[in-house]
Amino acid sequence: MIMTEIKAYAAASKEDDLKPYKLERRELTPDDVKIDILYCGVCHSDLHQVRNDWKNSVYPVVPGHEIIGKVMSVGDHVENFKEGDLVGVGCLVDSCQECSSCKDDLEQFCENGATFTYNSPDKHLGGHTFGGYSEAVVVDKKFVLKVPENIDAKAAAPLLCAGITTWSPLANWGVKKGDKVGVIGLGGLGHMGIKFAHALEAHTVMITTSPDKSEDAKSLGADEVLISKDEDQMKKHAGSFDFLLNTIPVGHDMNPYVGLLKRDATMVLVGAIEPLEPLHGGGIVMGRKRIAGSLIGGIKETQEMLDFCGEHNVVADIEMINIQDINEAYDRLQKSDVKYRFVIDMKSLKES
Amino acid sequence: MIMTEIKAYAAASKEDDLKPYKLERRELTPDDVKIDILYCGVCHSDLHQVRNDWKNSVYPVVPGHEIIGKVMSVGDHVENFKEGDLVGVGCLVDSCQECSSCKDDLEQFCENGATFTYNSPDKHLGGHTFGGYSEAVVVDKKFVLKVPENIDAKAAAPLLCAGITTWSPLANWGVKKGDKVGVIGLGGLGHMGIKFAHALEAHTVMITTSPDKSEDAKSLGADEVLISKDEDQMKKHAGSFDFLLNTIPVGHDMNPYVGLLKRDATMVLVGAIEPLEPLHGGGIVMGRKRIAGSLIGGIKETQEMLDFCGEHNVVADIEMINIQDINEAYDRLQKSDVKYRFVIDMKSLKES
Repeated sequence: MIMTEIKAYAAASKEDDLKPYKLERRELTPDDVKIDILYCGVCHSDLHQVRNDWKNSVYPVVPGHEIIGKVMSVGDHVENFKEGDLVGVGCLVDSCQECSSCKDDLEQFCENGATFTYNSPDKHLGGHTFGGYSEAVVVDKKFVLKVPENIDAKAAAPLLCAGITTWSPLANWGVKKGDKVGVIGLGGLGHMGIKFAHALEAHTVMITTSPDKSEDAKSLGADEVLISKDEDQMKKHAGSFDFLLNTIPVGHDMNPYVGLLKRDATMVLVGAIEPLEPLHGGGIVMGRKRIAGSLIGGIKETQEMLDFCGEHNVVADIEMINIQDINEAYDRLQKSDVKYRFVIDMKSLKES
Repeated sequence: MIMTEIKAYAAASKEDDLKPYKLERRELTPDDVKIDILYCGVCHSDLHQVRNDWKNSVYPVVPGHEIIGKVMSVGDHVENFKEGDLVGVGCLVDSCQECSSCKDDLEQFCENGATFTYNSPDKHLGGHTFGGYSEAVVVDKKFVLKVPENIDAKAAAPLLCAGITTWSPLANWGVKKGDKVGVIGLGGLGHMGIKFAHALEAHTVMITTSPDKSEDAKSLGADEVLISKDEDQMKKHAGSFDFLLNTIPVGHDMNPYVGLLKRDATMVLVGAIEPLEPLHGGGIVMGRKRIAGSLIGGIKETQEMLDFCGEHNVVADIEMINIQDINEAYDRLQKSDVKYRFVIDMKSLKES
């Protein structure tokens, strides 16, 4: 059973702007939750996928995986959600539930292929999945998250991707009170990294090339700002970090950052999904240092993050837009001209 | 107090061959052990230092940090060693004993600068330290290792560097029975890696570019051989390794090996102390994979390795040479023409 005529915005090809589009969604199955979408964050991945930067886009692309909404209705087997609940949907809407990654609550690494919220093969209707730039979505109950009622729902949207992407490495590598943690790069991801590291009571250092970001970094929770182009400052901090969260979204030279790590400490990359400049083997051999990657997070961990955000009142810094302004927002996003995340008010779509 | 006229072989400059040389050593202090050197392994580092490849050589260079000998005499405060004991000295002869690395039994990372066995500032006599291509050496008791009497003393020499360099990552990353472990590169380090992984009862896979090394790898203990240039074989093994020990001694492309790792698994580099080819960030982000370095090992861990070698009868495969043949051996070493480690019979020096 199919619902048709659901309002959305889509790109028809990589050259196209996003335009109004009508999509199909499945009707509720017994395990599904139907969600009225209130807000949807704008992730840099949306832009990459719309423009086919990763060469895996299937058109039309309806982006959006930072979804906040209200439950409209639930299937017969759904017990944890009821009409009216404030919920979230992130980057994942399904996985096999049987492989070792799924059993370890790491559905993002599902060995049979996780179903991503958009641009992923759709097991129910065929074709591919459509994201949150739309009025409503139907999602398996296992992939629906409870959003604490006490936080600003609009500003919670980016938690579903930027939030979990930065939370997961901090949690997985056990960052704790008193650790010296560096967050490299101040954008959508970096600003969440600072907020989380600060809320975890780590000594939080913003590491950036731009001195003019210092004040912002401090107001977000950084205890210190380290300008990575300043060799004296870099020397002063050499070998002193317990953990580095590297949010730089493009290829770059990791060597200066490796020099900042303590013995046995790790730098985790979450942004650069492309070739990096040559790493010097000596930099990691001396001090037994580690470099790792991390990809979003599993559903259990995402719920833990949202609960933490409820307890510590952590949300993203956002700029609200209407869906009609999405193409202009993409242009600004490409120039990093946003502090620090656009969120679409989906009322603008419904009332259009 | 100084002993003079100790016979050795040294390089006087980076252009020079190794030649007979007379060096000075300190007399025993109360904490020292004086060792009659029986055998000294030839490490690739010896060649690098003699030729100043790392730009930190101080001449004359007397190489050698894979030392096996008999205790000649001990200082008044030495209780664990006595005349006639079979002992070893590896890459380290001193460290501060006070920093966090020393307290964690990782003297190789001493934050105040470990004293390496040769080409390192000498705290006792000034100048720099001289290695094992000599008849005798005086070493602080904390840096002297007990060599099990049941193993072949000659073939134990390479355990002091090649052995601990490959043992330490296997031990530190907790490689255990049944793990699928890949050893990349079959040289002095790689052959020890295979022997150790096999002795630890891991499913041991030799990963090499050269099909003609297959038989040797199997006779050393490899359960399987994976030819890294064979794309079909690489695909078959993709995502299947619990641990990779990368012994390649030069810069190379890590990306194909990263593809072999399981989720959350680590590849440890022990050989390439130089720039590597560009790593693709996506390779570690997908699967939360890790790349790390490792440098020799601490003294406690080196003793544990030697004890393990005694229990499991693990030694290196060696070719014995006389000190007079050392320059020819270096030429062959540079062409990887040795299975798998030269060891100098120091009788040839004493009787010259």
